[in-house]
Amino acid sequence: MIITETIEQTREIVAQARREGKKIGCVPTMGALHEGHVALIRRCCGECDFSVVTIFVNPTQFGPAEDLECYPRTFESDCEACRKEGVDLIFAPSVTQMYPQQNLTWVNVDKLGEHLCGASRPMFFRGVCTVVAKLFNIVGPEVAYFGQKDAQQLAIIKRMVADLNIPVEIRPCPTVREADGLAMSSRNRYLNPEQRRQALCLFEALNRGVQLVISGQRDSAAIIAAMQEVIKRWPLARIDYISIVDSELLQPVAHLDRPCLIALAVHIGSARLIDNILVDPPGGKK
Amino acid sequence: MIITETIEQTREIVAQARREGKKIGCVPTMGALHEGHVALIRRCCGECDFSVVTIFVNPTQFGPAEDLECYPRTFESDCEACRKEGVDLIFAPSVTQMYPQQNLTWVNVDKLGEHLCGASRPMFFRGVCTVVAKLFNIVGPEVAYFGQKDAQQLAIIKRMVADLNIPVEIRPCPTVREADGLAMSSRNRYLNPEQRRQALCLFEALNRGVQLVISGQRDSAAIIAAMQEVIKRWPLARIDYISIVDSELLQPVAHLDRPCLIALAVHIGSARLIDNILVDPPGGKK
Repeated sequence: MIITETIEQTREIVAQARREGKKIGCVPTMGALHEGHVALIRRCCGECDFSVVTIFVNPTQFGPAEDLECYPRTFESDCEACRKEGVDLIFAPSVTQMYPQQNLTWVNVDKLGEHLCGASRPMFFRGVCTVVAKLFNIVGPEVAYFGQKDAQQLAIIKRMVADLNIPVEIRPCPTVREADGLAMSSRNRYLNPEQRRQALCLFEALNRGVQLVISGQRDSAAIIAAMQEVIKRWPLARIDYISIVDSELLQPVAHLDRPCLIALAVHIGSARLIDNILVDPPGGKK
Repeated sequence: MIITETIEQTREIVAQARREGKKIGCVPTMGALHEGHVALIRRCCGECDFSVVTIFVNPTQFGPAEDLECYPRTFESDCEACRKEGVDLIFAPSVTQMYPQQNLTWVNVDKLGEHLCGASRPMFFRGVCTVVAKLFNIVGPEVAYFGQKDAQQLAIIKRMVADLNIPVEIRPCPTVREADGLAMSSRNRYLNPEQRRQALCLFEALNRGVQLVISGQRDSAAIIAAMQEVIKRWPLARIDYISIVDSELLQPVAHLDRPCLIALAVHIGSARLIDNILVDPPGGKK
């Protein structure tokens, strides 16, 4: 496994693999790798001939009041996890390498970022799209892997790739959960044991929502109200949002008559956790 | 010479050339090719092994009151000109091919679009950057050629390519002029003989500005005032802007103490014409 820090060296090594006819796969990450990342990496290594993991805590996707400074950095164990899965190349650039001068160019996807996390993190997806476009331009992968856990990010990146004709195939991977149902997240590290226990409220609320849909409930407001009730039972949880949106343009729906995303964000201690589930109610319009 | 209309076919043909180790060059155009385009194309064909000219009148860079509908379309003679220069591939997609669904993703370069043409055409450079990013993603050229005539466009595309790490080298080419000095432009076709005669005011004003710089004048306001005087002598000319900006971030400068762009846009009849010249006054800071 090779570890590169410069764009130039990364390009050279990947170009060599490409000349050898290898299929290049990429898993963009911010490090602090957990089982969710490992699932993406494992799939990449299984499906591609040359697997690149990028590790870069991207400052342009953090708001001024967010956790850029204290975001977990676990480079040594990240490398170990990648090595174990058979990754060929880790690209771990510095901030100066990625942003050598003031960044003036932004890739923005309208509409899909209006709700959910985009509402409370207004610059977030602009930063994500811009850095993912940069990483794709540096690595030039044929396929790239993203987790369904970050559902809005996934939808926005898919749209960016389609709209800009970026020659990359985006492969979504299911959310990986702890044994009790908590979605894996680098930010789970922020939780103390009691917060960790109460973090289960996200999964519990989602399950409540899904049960209601299964039992025939199609009214978004009723489902959201029931999910709010679940969260309120946990004293350490503070809701950022609970939303039901269509799965394509991520616009709020009043009735679940098409494939929808039930999504929520909840603050627990200093951690802001997100989770979601796709529901495709029978009898709905496709 | 091959002519393609679909993205898929274009990608296949270029991929084949790439596999053969050929250096891919690209000249993005909106067609209505004139000697300025031919100079770009000739250089592309001379420096690359496989030359692609794209012909696409991009609707997203036209404002609602602008000349999208009547923009000159001369496909047959464009093809003839390309064939003569030895172009390998013309990619001439339809609007539906380039924008199969509502485009939600925009590439925007901050700051460099604030002044000059960006002031009177607020959506213009967003549309240009987005379509150029798309064309680069479709064609995947190693080098691309742009004219210095569209100086702001050139500066913005260079910045986009740098900021987004797009693996393309941008090669600027000098403005090509008619015998009397009028910069070649597809929009010169809009001019009747009297308008054509008066269109020379742009070149005349630029020359006046350059003379002043050569004679030691460093005050932007004085140079702009003198250039305005020149334009005012031509009754059919209406000034959009005359500006002096630094050549990197295209911000107005009060004093010419670094490399600067003297640029202007003038309406003559239904045509809006632009021209510019780079000046690098001796003794200025670099």
